[in-house]
Parts: sequence; C-alpha cells; structure tokens
Amino acid sequence: MSEILFDRIALIGIGLIGSSIARDIKKFGLAREVVISTRSAETLNRAEELELGTAYTTSAAEAVKNADLVIVSVPVGASEAVAQQIAPHLKAGAIVTDVGSTKASVIAQMAPHMPENVHFIPGHPLAGTEKSGPDAGFSGLFKGRWCIFTPLPGTDRAALERLSSFWKALGSMIDEMDPQHHDKVLAIVSHLPHIIAYNIVGTADDLEAVTESEVIKYSASGFRDFTRLAASDPTMWRDVCLHNKDAILEMLARFSEDLAYLQRAIRWGEGDKLFELFSRTRTIRRSIVQAGQDVDSPDFGRHALDK
Amino acid sequence: MSEILFDRIALIGIGLIGSSIARDIKKFGLAREVVISTRSAETLNRAEELELGTAYTTSAAEAVKNADLVIVSVPVGASEAVAQQIAPHLKAGAIVTDVGSTKASVIAQMAPHMPENVHFIPGHPLAGTEKSGPDAGFSGLFKGRWCIFTPLPGTDRAALERLSSFWKALGSMIDEMDPQHHDKVLAIVSHLPHIIAYNIVGTADDLEAVTESEVIKYSASGFRDFTRLAASDPTMWRDVCLHNKDAILEMLARFSEDLAYLQRAIRWGEGDKLFELFSRTRTIRRSIVQAGQDVDSPDFGRHALDK
Repeated sequence: MSEILFDRIALIGIGLIGSSIARDIKKFGLAREVVISTRSAETLNRAEELELGTAYTTSAAEAVKNADLVIVSVPVGASEAVAQQIAPHLKAGAIVTDVGSTKASVIAQMAPHMPENVHFIPGHPLAGTEKSGPDAGFSGLFKGRWCIFTPLPGTDRAALERLSSFWKALGSMIDEMDPQHHDKVLAIVSHLPHIIAYNIVGTADDLEAVTESEVIKYSASGFRDFTRLAASDPTMWRDVCLHNKDAILEMLARFSEDLAYLQRAIRWGEGDKLFELFSRTRTIRRSIVQAGQDVDSPDFGRHALDK
Repeated sequence: MSEILFDRIALIGIGLIGSSIARDIKKFGLAREVVISTRSAETLNRAEELELGTAYTTSAAEAVKNADLVIVSVPVGASEAVAQQIAPHLKAGAIVTDVGSTKASVIAQMAPHMPENVHFIPGHPLAGTEKSGPDAGFSGLFKGRWCIFTPLPGTDRAALERLSSFWKALGSMIDEMDPQHHDKVLAIVSHLPHIIAYNIVGTADDLEAVTESEVIKYSASGFRDFTRLAASDPTMWRDVCLHNKDAILEMLARFSEDLAYLQRAIRWGEGDKLFELFSRTRTIRRSIVQAGQDVDSPDFGRHALDK
C-alpha cells in the first residue's frame, strides 16, 4: 500500500507524535523527502541517528521551503512562534496542519500569520502514550485512532481530502467538527482525565500518614491506573491547561459538583445512591470495548506482562 | 511445588477472589478437600461446573464443618452475617480469614462472634480485576501481589505463619500492619482511585454538550483509563465506601483541596505551578514500574492488543 502522497513533507517538532508520523511516512513511502526540524540540536541529532527523515535543520523557516505538507507537532503554546517563523517561507499551495490538543487557541495563534495562498487545516490525531521524545514514537501509533479536523470556513475541500488521505494512510479514521466543540469534547475525554490523574498522584505524594513507599508497593490496587496519565509530558499538559482554560474549568466545576454529591452520599451512608452510580458506569466501559477503543482483557491485558 | 497445607479448606463466597483462590489451591494441590459455599444457587452451580472445589453447599454453616482453614470472600458489608452463620460450626483450632478491602470494619463485624478456640486472622490480598463472578477468577491472580494481615493483639504466631505459607504458595508477598493504618493506606491507593474513576465516568455520562457516543469514540485520549476501575463490582464498592468512611472522607477532602489549588492555577494562567506538579508526578510512576507493580510498556502494553 505504498503511494507517494507528497513530494516533500516538513515535520516541525519531532517528539512522540512527530517521530511516529515520520516512521509511518517512511514505512508506507508516503513522501520523497522528509525534512525534520526541531529547536534542540540534541533532539535533532537523535532524530538523525534514528534516520527519521531525509534532511535535518534547527530552523523551521528552512525546513518548510518547498514543502507540500507541513505538520507542526509542538506544545500548543509554541504554535504562534512557529507560525511566525514559517509563514514567510511557505510554498504557494502548501498544506499546513498541526496536531495540537486544543484547537480554538491554535487557530487564534496561527491563522493570522498564514499567507492567503496556503491551506491551513488545523488537525488533532487522538493518539499518544505517556512517553515523550523522538525515541518514544513508533509506527502504528495512529492506526485505528481518530483524527479530528477543525477546518476554517472556506477551506478548500480538495486540500482537506488530500490531508485526509495522508492520515488514512497512517490508519486513522477521520472526523470533522468546529473548534469550540472539539475543545469541549477533548476537555472531558482527555484534558480532565489527565488533570485528575495528575492531581490524585500529587495528593498521594503529599500524605504524611502514608509513606511514598507504601503508595508504590500497593499501587496495583487501583492507584497505578492513574500514574500512566500522570507521567505524560509536563510541557504539553501545562500548555493544554493554559490554552483550553474555559472548557477545562467548566468540566472541572461539573466534576467537583458530582464529587461533592458522592462525598455526601458516603458521609450519610446512602448505599442506594452509591450503588446506582457504580452500576451505570459499567455500561460505558462495555461500549468503549465494543467500539474497539479499548481491550477487553482484565487489567488492560497487562496481567500477562507484569509477571 | 505441590504440598498439602490444609486437609480441608472452606471458601465462603466464590466470586473473582474466591474462585481465583480455588483455582490456585487446585493447581498447587494445597488441600485435600475444598468446600465451596455461596448464597446464590446459580453461582454455586457455576462453581461446580467449573470444578472449583470438591463439595458445594449454599449453607456457610455446613461448609465450615471440619474445615482447617476458612476463607471469607464476600462484600465487606456481609461480614457480620457470615460470622454469625459460621461461628457455632467452626472446628477447634481452625484458622478463619477474610479478603476484605477494609479491615477495621471487618474486625468489628466478625471478631465478637469468633469462638475463643479458633484463630481469626483478618487479611487482604491486594489483587483483583474489573471483572467479577466465578468465571472472572484465574490462577495466578495473586502472584507478585501483596497480602496484608492485620492480626489482632495476641494472635498465635504459628497460625499466622501457617496462613502466610498458604498465601506464599499462591505467589503473594506478605505484609503486616494495624487495621487503622491499613484502612488509611487503602483509602489512598485503592478506594479514592475507584471513587474518582466512578465519578469522572458519571460526569462524562451526564454532559449535554458532548454526546455519549463522542465520549466513547474518543475515549482513547485518556478517558478510557478510568473506565476500567469504574467497571468494578458495584456491590463491593458500595460496601467499601460505607465501611471505610472516615479514611475515605479524609482522602477526598485532601484531593478536593489539591484540585481547587490546581483549578485556581488554571484560571489564573499560572504555568509554573502546573509545570511543577506535572513534573513531580512522573517520578512516582517510574518508582512503581521499578518496584515491579506495573508494566513499563506504553499504554499499559495494550497497544499491541487493541488493534
């Protein structure tokens, strides 16, 4: 299934996401040239050692020259700086996309800088792991996962189709929504879970009555499930919190309200209320497994691995 | 490594935990006879179909007769009723233990009923999955996991050693602590994570702006990690909440306080505070992996499975 979709692709940022894209481009032969750019010389060297592209530069401006597709994979807070650097050097007709976890903010940061003659199509592949950096990437990360576009009004459908073909070649399924809705959806399915996970791990770390070594020893009884998300890239998640503030604060308010209700039920020994909540949440997991978005094996299937 | 440790073992309750114990007893040949008892005739039939024991009865009183070891594996709220049923029929010198997730409450429920001439040793194997019932059990569930005893003052050390040998034969590591400390430790490493997971899944289920099908479709971006715990047995978790109330409420208060701090940092755009918290939580996961209490593979290693 090898077909060249773009002559030259520029990857700005080569962390978990960028390097996974690079590996898939190479594996499926989707481009003749892949120029890789990242600010850190050290990371760039590592990308070269891993042979992730065909050319390497610390200059984003340099990287995008003559590129038909530019994929920006940086923490969302760096979007505007990248847009400013690359804008004057973009090829006419080029497609510029990103992979950021928040969309309204990325659009506000990048769109004003984009020249009229390029296709700026904001995107978000819903894939990742708790690891970061170019070594953490792997081919197949996007397989079976959703990629959401939040195109601006008046976006060229042909360019959108071309970008869709690229993500489909990586195994993704495509969705489209407006940026505000995307940010609300992601606030609940991704941002809130990460924030809650960071928070509970922080709470456990701060206890005086229970030692850290006890938390670690006995973590298999539930706690460890949270530590995976809480091990995610701090820069990326700081930026997500700062750049999807309104939707996140709304979800946090709802979560806290629900938690207060639950807490009250515990305090007053209202077993029926607890049982009702604890029963209906089972259904959702069943649906997720049926939708192919998680494995059905107990303990995420890790039981076989953790021996 | 087959050695008969007890002539006759009675298992009261044959769900995930009870049936996993039964499978290991059989596999390692740890007893001559295994009498299985559960209130539900249907579950008992299933246990017999699975050939989990050597005798089957819906009467707990009947089951414990002549048993050298009695293991009570029921939701903690049912502990007193079981204690009342079995007390008059226990063999002199028998060891009676349980597997409950809360210990002070189980002791308060069971100890007053226990005859002088039996060894009542409360225990808690820290193992389980999100599945429940006799079909969910499997041999090896306790391997590499901790089993915590919370012995009462004056407990016979020889009896404790004998019970330890049993759990060690199942692959467990043994710890000992007082019941109050156990309940605090478990409140943070197990009870709070489950309650938080139930809560966030409930919050997501209630949203109007985001549909349930969106939550399910995009769950791989973080949310799905919580749904596993939130699929756990509702009866068991209702009872845990009701029977470890004080420690849980204390942990919930701390968690909410920390979350308010985090929420404020998001509202006021305090990136440094967010970055600091998001960085230190990484260390804990690393320690858990090093301690052999979780797998190091990204996504709990399920990536390979979920394709």
